[in-house]
Amino acid sequence: MEIKITPISPEERQSPLEDISNIVFGSQFTNHMFLMEWDQGRGWHDARIEKYHALTLEPSAIIFHYGQEAFEGLKAYCTVGGKYVLFRPEQNFARLNKTARRMCLPELDEQFALKALKQLIEQDIDWIPKAEGTSLYVRPTIIATEPALGLKQSASFLFFIILCPVGPYYSEGFNPVKIIVSEEYTRAAPGGVGEAKTAGNYAASNLAEKEAKESGFTQVLWLDAVERRYVEEVGSMNIFFVINDEIVTPQLTGTILPGITRDSVLQVGKHWGLTMTERKISIDEVIESIENGSLSEIFGSGTAAVVSPVGELHYRGKKYVIKDGKTGPFARRFFDEIVGIQYGKVKDPFQWLEPIL
Amino acid sequence: MEIKITPISPEERQSPLEDISNIVFGSQFTNHMFLMEWDQGRGWHDARIEKYHALTLEPSAIIFHYGQEAFEGLKAYCTVGGKYVLFRPEQNFARLNKTARRMCLPELDEQFALKALKQLIEQDIDWIPKAEGTSLYVRPTIIATEPALGLKQSASFLFFIILCPVGPYYSEGFNPVKIIVSEEYTRAAPGGVGEAKTAGNYAASNLAEKEAKESGFTQVLWLDAVERRYVEEVGSMNIFFVINDEIVTPQLTGTILPGITRDSVLQVGKHWGLTMTERKISIDEVIESIENGSLSEIFGSGTAAVVSPVGELHYRGKKYVIKDGKTGPFARRFFDEIVGIQYGKVKDPFQWLEPIL
Repeated sequence: MEIKITPISPEERQSPLEDISNIVFGSQFTNHMFLMEWDQGRGWHDARIEKYHALTLEPSAIIFHYGQEAFEGLKAYCTVGGKYVLFRPEQNFARLNKTARRMCLPELDEQFALKALKQLIEQDIDWIPKAEGTSLYVRPTIIATEPALGLKQSASFLFFIILCPVGPYYSEGFNPVKIIVSEEYTRAAPGGVGEAKTAGNYAASNLAEKEAKESGFTQVLWLDAVERRYVEEVGSMNIFFVINDEIVTPQLTGTILPGITRDSVLQVGKHWGLTMTERKISIDEVIESIENGSLSEIFGSGTAAVVSPVGELHYRGKKYVIKDGKTGPFARRFFDEIVGIQYGKVKDPFQWLEPIL
Repeated sequence: MEIKITPISPEERQSPLEDISNIVFGSQFTNHMFLMEWDQGRGWHDARIEKYHALTLEPSAIIFHYGQEAFEGLKAYCTVGGKYVLFRPEQNFARLNKTARRMCLPELDEQFALKALKQLIEQDIDWIPKAEGTSLYVRPTIIATEPALGLKQSASFLFFIILCPVGPYYSEGFNPVKIIVSEEYTRAAPGGVGEAKTAGNYAASNLAEKEAKESGFTQVLWLDAVERRYVEEVGSMNIFFVINDEIVTPQLTGTILPGITRDSVLQVGKHWGLTMTERKISIDEVIESIENGSLSEIFGSGTAAVVSPVGELHYRGKKYVIKDGKTGPFARRFFDEIVGIQYGKVKDPFQWLEPIL
């Protein structure tokens, strides 16, 4: 399929922001966006890059009522060598298709979607910021657009990609987060859509996160919905525990997001010869390991922060300080290595960087 | 707050469809819609009734990514005496606010919302169809509109109401449905948002319902997500079992929708002196009751069909025929009574009808 490119005129073109250090994440977008539609007769069609613009949908569009959608989040970087790269984008498009299958959305040609993304970024290449720690955030999204209130799968869909520059996550150094175990709320259950990157999972997390923030915590640590015992994920990140010489993260059982940064941490750790274990880990084991001193670090992993050290864990009214509230050596080492690869500062033995131009 | 009404011109005005017997549910809307916005400074504002039109939202609007929304469904009727009425609308607005609290949406003034709905319907009063079994479906919806990809509660919202005429559900008489127990998928877990009327619950049900339909079933019967044992609801309806002299429906434990038709069935049954029981009921008890002959009927309840008899239940590869696949006397009696009240054909001891004009 051909991608029709309609670049905006030089007069309309907005210059990239000079200083993005104080920009609110996901609030400022580039000049262009990619769009294509799907319908039952034609499949995906009308692939195009055009001026970033608002979407016009009927008030009865399925997305407004039944939330049928899938999205992804990844980043483009300018390396220290001045190259423009994406970090493991094929993983994001593979996961987008996995979400699409779970949510009854039409799948994309992953190669084509990657090509479309590269062509889009090429139009706005000067929007990839160059300051240390900055990047261009990429949000591919599929939404159900059919105007129909009947409970049925949508007959029409829109796929779009938008881009926004993001500032450095740790502009003032690491800031270990305080997390609280949610005992009242759950995020996803077996048989549900917890492993899909879809709107409903995030909507369902809002209240717990709001209440946590009001109590002074940064994130919620979710337990499994069946036994309320096994650790799942933290806020919008996967989670790792350093216990003795083992680095443990909850295994992928269908209820947690299969994070690409999670996978990167696992691969990097194995490459270093560390014991990286994916298994069930109960909150009781975590607390016991903190109390007996065998747990030395907790950190989260995600696209936004890459690695986010946990300084405090709250559970059943009790506060557990981790690593004196400071960043531990493993969190620091994983962060430096993965960020190093992303910015071309350290060797990439995994071939994770995909050139854009 | 004042409601600004901008009626469309007589030339633009579309006449109601003459024959709506073959209309696809939720595909044809009336001339007008109600809208109002919310933001942190002003709260709800700009209440207005204007021409039905498409919505224009930034591609970064929270609804497209994180699904923060709530909706309702109710109906307006023309009674046999020629009066225009709503059925228990205050219940829908109370539930909309309950959903809003769970989903971190701003609440509505319920009295005001009802007033707005009445004024909206008044503009399109000739769209309330008069043929037997027809009605005007009402869809109030709150969506998060802030253009911001950060995971946070939206700072702006839109509330809108749209109206669509719907044909008789049983134009060719009752058609008992075939349902299948989902063993692979679950709908909602304790601690989640199962009792909220919000997009994510419907998005999460799509795949199970699609697979059920492909296998020849009308609906999925959901079991609880923890023990996979207790009956929750069927498709988008609540469910009732007639076992010996007891009419049983699953109790409201937070994972199922508190249906207003469910409540109407319970109240009508109690008014008749029947034993109406809200309690946990396991799929094992249902199957055992079918096998020993003590179960005489199964039916669903919901706004669309009011009462929907179940003719076949499939579980673990086995088919159980209920009431010889025909409509039972309780389903028939509840249907006739509630529909009779809605259309003013039988006395309404509950004061469930709310006049529109």
